[in-house]
Amino acid sequence: MNEIEETLKSLHDSIEANESGEVSRLLNQIQSADYPRLVDRLSVDEREKLMGMVSPETAAALLARISETQVVGILDKLNPEKAANIIQELGSDEAADLLGVLKAEGAEAILCEMQPKEASEVRELMAYAEDTAGGLMRFEFLSYPVSSSVGDVIEDLRRNAEIYSDFDVQYAYVVDKSKRIVGVLRMRDLLLSNSETGVSELMIHNPLFVPHSMEQSILASMFKEKQLVGLPVVDENETLLGVVLRSSVREATAEAVAEDFLKVSGLGGKEELRSMPLQLRSRRRLSWLSINILLNVLAASVIAFFQDTLAQVIALAVFLPIISDMSGCSGSQAVAVSIRELTLGLVRPTELLRVFLKEIAVGIVNGIALGMLIALVAFLWKGNPWLGLVVGGALMLNTIVAVCLGGLIPLILKRLDLDPALASGPILTTVTDMCGFFLALSLATILLPYLT
Amino acid sequence: MNEIEETLKSLHDSIEANESGEVSRLLNQIQSADYPRLVDRLSVDEREKLMGMVSPETAAALLARISETQVVGILDKLNPEKAANIIQELGSDEAADLLGVLKAEGAEAILCEMQPKEASEVRELMAYAEDTAGGLMRFEFLSYPVSSSVGDVIEDLRRNAEIYSDFDVQYAYVVDKSKRIVGVLRMRDLLLSNSETGVSELMIHNPLFVPHSMEQSILASMFKEKQLVGLPVVDENETLLGVVLRSSVREATAEAVAEDFLKVSGLGGKEELRSMPLQLRSRRRLSWLSINILLNVLAASVIAFFQDTLAQVIALAVFLPIISDMSGCSGSQAVAVSIRELTLGLVRPTELLRVFLKEIAVGIVNGIALGMLIALVAFLWKGNPWLGLVVGGALMLNTIVAVCLGGLIPLILKRLDLDPALASGPILTTVTDMCGFFLALSLATILLPYLT
Repeated sequence: MNEIEETLKSLHDSIEANESGEVSRLLNQIQSADYPRLVDRLSVDEREKLMGMVSPETAAALLARISETQVVGILDKLNPEKAANIIQELGSDEAADLLGVLKAEGAEAILCEMQPKEASEVRELMAYAEDTAGGLMRFEFLSYPVSSSVGDVIEDLRRNAEIYSDFDVQYAYVVDKSKRIVGVLRMRDLLLSNSETGVSELMIHNPLFVPHSMEQSILASMFKEKQLVGLPVVDENETLLGVVLRSSVREATAEAVAEDFLKVSGLGGKEELRSMPLQLRSRRRLSWLSINILLNVLAASVIAFFQDTLAQVIALAVFLPIISDMSGCSGSQAVAVSIRELTLGLVRPTELLRVFLKEIAVGIVNGIALGMLIALVAFLWKGNPWLGLVVGGALMLNTIVAVCLGGLIPLILKRLDLDPALASGPILTTVTDMCGFFLALSLATILLPYLT
Repeated sequence: MNEIEETLKSLHDSIEANESGEVSRLLNQIQSADYPRLVDRLSVDEREKLMGMVSPETAAALLARISETQVVGILDKLNPEKAANIIQELGSDEAADLLGVLKAEGAEAILCEMQPKEASEVRELMAYAEDTAGGLMRFEFLSYPVSSSVGDVIEDLRRNAEIYSDFDVQYAYVVDKSKRIVGVLRMRDLLLSNSETGVSELMIHNPLFVPHSMEQSILASMFKEKQLVGLPVVDENETLLGVVLRSSVREATAEAVAEDFLKVSGLGGKEELRSMPLQLRSRRRLSWLSINILLNVLAASVIAFFQDTLAQVIALAVFLPIISDMSGCSGSQAVAVSIRELTLGLVRPTELLRVFLKEIAVGIVNGIALGMLIALVAFLWKGNPWLGLVVGGALMLNTIVAVCLGGLIPLILKRLDLDPALASGPILTTVTDMCGFFLALSLATILLPYLT
């Protein structure tokens, strides 16, 4: 702990004093697990200066270890030439990912400074949708013509050992004259053959490949099923385009889950770091809160409608926030189950009836349990069984409504091509609040003679 | 859609009729991405029967594709011998994971039926903590004595090709006489050497290795930094124990994030599938709801304390649920940022002051904005500026409290070794509700003459 703070202080000083040797030495001294926190504590100017002081390799290694949000913040500030040098050290898929998150002009400026071949690869990758095999694939793979011999392959590996050292070389792909994929070669099988053998004899025929349009979720389930390091990606003519690695798919899936978490928490799926400017953090959070407060006012207007009842049975005011909060909790549980079942492929957006039947059962059981509990509290407090009936009945009915809606809303949003993680919460709480307030206060109005 | 339903119907029938050939044919016909939904729709008895009708390989392939919760449900029902046959088809780390989730007697019964060697490997793995290198490693790796030649290694690969086909064989580890790791051999380097060369010449010296006690989060950051498929795991004497794969660490990390989501949503971090029995689903959800309702009653008791004020200014009852819900939302955003920053290693649990200063700034800005908005609503509705002052002032102050608490609670829970994702929400909403009700109603009591 203290050690890190000291290193951080020395780093501040060395950057200030432009001592690039000392900066590199300090970076090496720190555990890489501490990089994110370190970068977080440097000012924007210091980060920019730091990137200029170390080699592109060191800079790329640093960027590979910190969060995407931090990387984008740094690249935005660097001059395009320096940024291009660093980005060239990354794999084509990572480079395309990072540039895809930058603003269009910024990305273009950096691409113009990159080596033409690498720039055109990255441009090609950026043209595919981010969550498809095309968007996730990389160009660092081995392929050989079907007419090659084992000796040709080994000779090529020997000659280009330096370039290939960045590749995942468990497999090489075998292509025909029109670059269509016809086989897969296991590298370890090369070990066991003599150099005259043709790769066509050694290769696995009818290899597994995927179209560039295949969705990330399906890729994830393919990798889950099969112990593969990568899958070849092809275009409409089965021409080999690239390879999508298990690790890229996993990373993309993990990011999607993390985004869901940020969306459900009211941060719009965007990463907020506390080192970001106050104005940005405040504005982002407010954009969601301001919608929510309007929905809240809408829901509370139901209470205003029943003011006369409330004025006569003031005890009800104590229970309204409880009904609102508890229905929200019950509904959120059902929302979470639906979002998980959608992610895991256990339910289709069209299966509304199935979800409804499953949820209403839980809603009835839990509604009765919670309703009886709160009815007991109300009765013990005021000694009036009718008050217990009103608040208990309202909570029971509203729990059933909330649980059913919570289960159905994510499916409906998915069918409408809206984001369940983002919109389910606010819609659910507004509707259940309105319904809960209405149930409690209209029941109270009907039973008013017994309550006063 | 319809196709799946038809296949499902045929599968029901074939299982009923005990036609194992037809069952296997139907399984092959279905896209593996549909396996989870398929299993979900079979009854518990049908699942058990299905497992008995197909080969252990097919059964293992099916289990590898469905969710852990589903697998455990199936293994719990199978007879131990059948379960052992299936589990032996999996890697030692996956086998240990699954058995670790079963009840102790169930796991023991299955272990007794497994091949002694594999059973003892799995037992060994189960002895390590789940979220450490030891718990995540597997025994399927290659190692050779430092005295071997390239020819020896190739000969061994040739002889055991069948066994090794399940391994990730990009690397082999080189060990000395006391099994201490001394080097790493890249398989592709074997291709480029003649068979007399000793592995000691070819290997990379001072290999990277990790102690079995290393935590999952640190492993995750190591894999993020370096393009490695696996890392060797050693004991206190640097003896090679096993290898931890990048994919195992990624999977474990993704599971941890998914668990956080389920915890924040009030499901206690446990996967709920709608095919589970109603009683279980209802009980699990209620266990969290019943704590929450008690906390809610506690918070609402503040309102009861101010009944006289409320009776005179009934309009306040409309605003209490809004203050409660909005403070909860503002606080949840701060909770999510803290949980993310803890996960990403951007903040330490001890850095309370830093988080407090960062959050109070956002709290003041957003508090003023939201407070002014609700004050305006109150003023427009009742035409009384003092009512606006009371509800706006209360929401402003309570937003600041909620945002600061939301930022700090996860750090404090982490320091106390409690789970931030599980406990932050209920603690936050209870405290902010109490505080919000108190602020609004005590302000109203002070300003009562201007409100009536």
